[in-house]
Amino acid sequence: MGIRSVLIANRGEIAVRVIRACRELGIHTVSVYSEADKDSMHVKLSHRSICIGPPEASKSYLDIPRIMSALEVSGADAVHPGYGFLSENPKFAEVVNASKRVFIGPPPHVLELIGDKVKARELAKKVGLPLLPGSDGPVDFKKAVEIANSIGYPVVIKAAGGGGGRGIRVVHNERELREKLPLAMQEAQVAFGDNRVYIEKYLINPKHIEVQVLADRYGNVVCLGERECSIQRRYQKLVEEAPSVSITDQQRKILEEGVTEFCKALGYVGAGTVEFLMDQDGNFYFMEMNGRIQVEHPVTEMVTGIDIVKWQIKIAEGEKLKLGEVENRGYAIEFRINAEDPNTFMPSPGTVETLYLPGGPGIRVDTHVYCGYTVPPYYDSLLLKLVVWGKDREEAIMRGRRALEELVITGKGLKTNVEFHKRVVATREFREGRHHVRFVEELMI
Amino acid sequence: MGIRSVLIANRGEIAVRVIRACRELGIHTVSVYSEADKDSMHVKLSHRSICIGPPEASKSYLDIPRIMSALEVSGADAVHPGYGFLSENPKFAEVVNASKRVFIGPPPHVLELIGDKVKARELAKKVGLPLLPGSDGPVDFKKAVEIANSIGYPVVIKAAGGGGGRGIRVVHNERELREKLPLAMQEAQVAFGDNRVYIEKYLINPKHIEVQVLADRYGNVVCLGERECSIQRRYQKLVEEAPSVSITDQQRKILEEGVTEFCKALGYVGAGTVEFLMDQDGNFYFMEMNGRIQVEHPVTEMVTGIDIVKWQIKIAEGEKLKLGEVENRGYAIEFRINAEDPNTFMPSPGTVETLYLPGGPGIRVDTHVYCGYTVPPYYDSLLLKLVVWGKDREEAIMRGRRALEELVITGKGLKTNVEFHKRVVATREFREGRHHVRFVEELMI
Repeated sequence: MGIRSVLIANRGEIAVRVIRACRELGIHTVSVYSEADKDSMHVKLSHRSICIGPPEASKSYLDIPRIMSALEVSGADAVHPGYGFLSENPKFAEVVNASKRVFIGPPPHVLELIGDKVKARELAKKVGLPLLPGSDGPVDFKKAVEIANSIGYPVVIKAAGGGGGRGIRVVHNERELREKLPLAMQEAQVAFGDNRVYIEKYLINPKHIEVQVLADRYGNVVCLGERECSIQRRYQKLVEEAPSVSITDQQRKILEEGVTEFCKALGYVGAGTVEFLMDQDGNFYFMEMNGRIQVEHPVTEMVTGIDIVKWQIKIAEGEKLKLGEVENRGYAIEFRINAEDPNTFMPSPGTVETLYLPGGPGIRVDTHVYCGYTVPPYYDSLLLKLVVWGKDREEAIMRGRRALEELVITGKGLKTNVEFHKRVVATREFREGRHHVRFVEELMI
Repeated sequence: MGIRSVLIANRGEIAVRVIRACRELGIHTVSVYSEADKDSMHVKLSHRSICIGPPEASKSYLDIPRIMSALEVSGADAVHPGYGFLSENPKFAEVVNASKRVFIGPPPHVLELIGDKVKARELAKKVGLPLLPGSDGPVDFKKAVEIANSIGYPVVIKAAGGGGGRGIRVVHNERELREKLPLAMQEAQVAFGDNRVYIEKYLINPKHIEVQVLADRYGNVVCLGERECSIQRRYQKLVEEAPSVSITDQQRKILEEGVTEFCKALGYVGAGTVEFLMDQDGNFYFMEMNGRIQVEHPVTEMVTGIDIVKWQIKIAEGEKLKLGEVENRGYAIEFRINAEDPNTFMPSPGTVETLYLPGGPGIRVDTHVYCGYTVPPYYDSLLLKLVVWGKDREEAIMRGRRALEELVITGKGLKTNVEFHKRVVATREFREGRHHVRFVEELMI
């Protein structure tokens, strides 16, 4: 069934990205926007735009009835949810489907399943994807020693009833375990009123590796290779690249086979990403699956030449995957340029007064920002994705440095993390591919 | 020998392009500028900039002594001439070489030879490149009939002493030749005081096809495939693409073999382009060779992934060509966005007040223009090159349409040809690949 008109239930750069895919497919677009976003680029570029409420996301971009009203009014026959907001909400997918419109994403029951971490881990285990080893429940000292011996040190002791880093202790041998287990239990009791603790393998400086997947309605699953997203701060990705500098063709093959099995077992349909941690010995551990387009999808598009957002739409139309042999060419790196204080990483909205975008060979810019645009304080701080491509990683890095030098995005009240990115690409660790998920916190601050 | 600092003897988008290549190679850049260009992007992006004179190119960008003074002052050890201006001037190359600096381009004697159309044609003939058949000199009626019979009708009668289209007659058979030859001679006599005429094969709606070449100092010549540049107006290219929709792998192979032979016979070094016309039966006719980077080089870069400007520099440093197998991926199309009246094609300078550059997948923008920039009236009208890539020609065209719709470049007094390009990509002829060098004049006006 051909989609003629898509309502984009999102804002910012991803709404612009979806509009571009639609236009190139000859599809009409309907944007929705909050009162804070009336001057956003996604409103300017869309064939039609509908205001859905006040700035607070809970009363606009997260409000299912308001979005369904806009859908009704617009006559669009499909909804693209972007990322964040309602993109992985099974109820939203269900309501859209019930209204006889097409939800451009996985079926509701699949969103439900991958959203339940326990069930997703169970299924991953069933198809043979490795999980981070641990006690899978509370331990006493005897059991802790037994498990630690079987999974190997270091292990981390975590409070069963807690979170937020409290009660967490890393131990490197049995002596330390003997010392620290009672302390951890005591701290857990004080902090959470619950002295139960469990143990899990502690990964030293792991890398974040994820696999991009496309799956059609007919059971065909195609992996588009991996991305490495190890440059993070507080679990927020800041720099992503494809392919990973740290995995071999053999590892990629094994990873993709596992991911394909997992998606088939799920009955997955659409674009998705399966996330792993990789330890220093090259072992992978399944973390979770994301059932939406991801912020960092452009690096995969640049190396494969495949337009992932167009394929989301085509899959939703019932098209069969016909990608031929997926071939990688070169390296791509994405830098997330955020409106944030470079020291505190706190959001820093303002008005863009000067804007020079980098250009020339191997540069892609995805943004909703333009000269004169005022960044509203209500939403995430992503201003612009600067994505660079090079025939090899070294060229991509040099191009990234050059592009970051060219980029000017300044204005009253506006601070960005451009300088942070310049520092990342200048480090020997990043250039040599030795960066990991704790790199920013441990080495850069 | 490693180049540490490059003086760029040019302006506008190509100066910016060269700065980008230098920065990615870790090379220091020196820009030169006329008084009219002090606010140009090539001045802002360069490590150092030197004013070389008043706006008139003859007193700045074309003035060899002024550029040599800047070179002396700057301490740069190499010169990149860009395109136009002094780029193919053998004397300039000679003076740079004599100053013990590196001229980033072919040796002076090669520039001399390819600049002499008669000598270049002789060499092309010698290595077996086909030339447009004709009388190679003045004819009387008897000889004209003889030659026309041997090369086939239609033929064109041209004044030997003239130019600018006067005295030109197309004839389709001997009867027309008999009628029109005396008229042409008479008109030539009146127009140029010289009644001699010659005849040449007339190509019906030919295509402009050119082959991009890189050659190092050690006799290695690599062809990077062809570009089709048939969308022209008054011999000015407006839309270029790679690869050509109209040539087969077999034709490409033959063309590249001929071009390689030609470059070897020339002792060519650097980046260059060999231009051909192709008739409707797929026959090629050598036109000329250009010994510089070309405006349309980005389409080749997008399909091959090879940075041609970086290779110009590396070749000048004495590096050997190491490109591996040159593989094309997808299609690329360049649209030249000029500051010109869309109806008259007359230059239309002004100040850029609103600028939205297209972005997202498969888009490359090369420009020296920014919000607030005033286009000076002294130089060529090229504002911006919009280059799009798609996995196939259809995707590239749809992406081109989408990007042209996104592009906003307006301001007081400023007119552009954005609408012209939208019309070109909407024509059935262009979409079906049936465009030719007379397409704009015959079909669009």
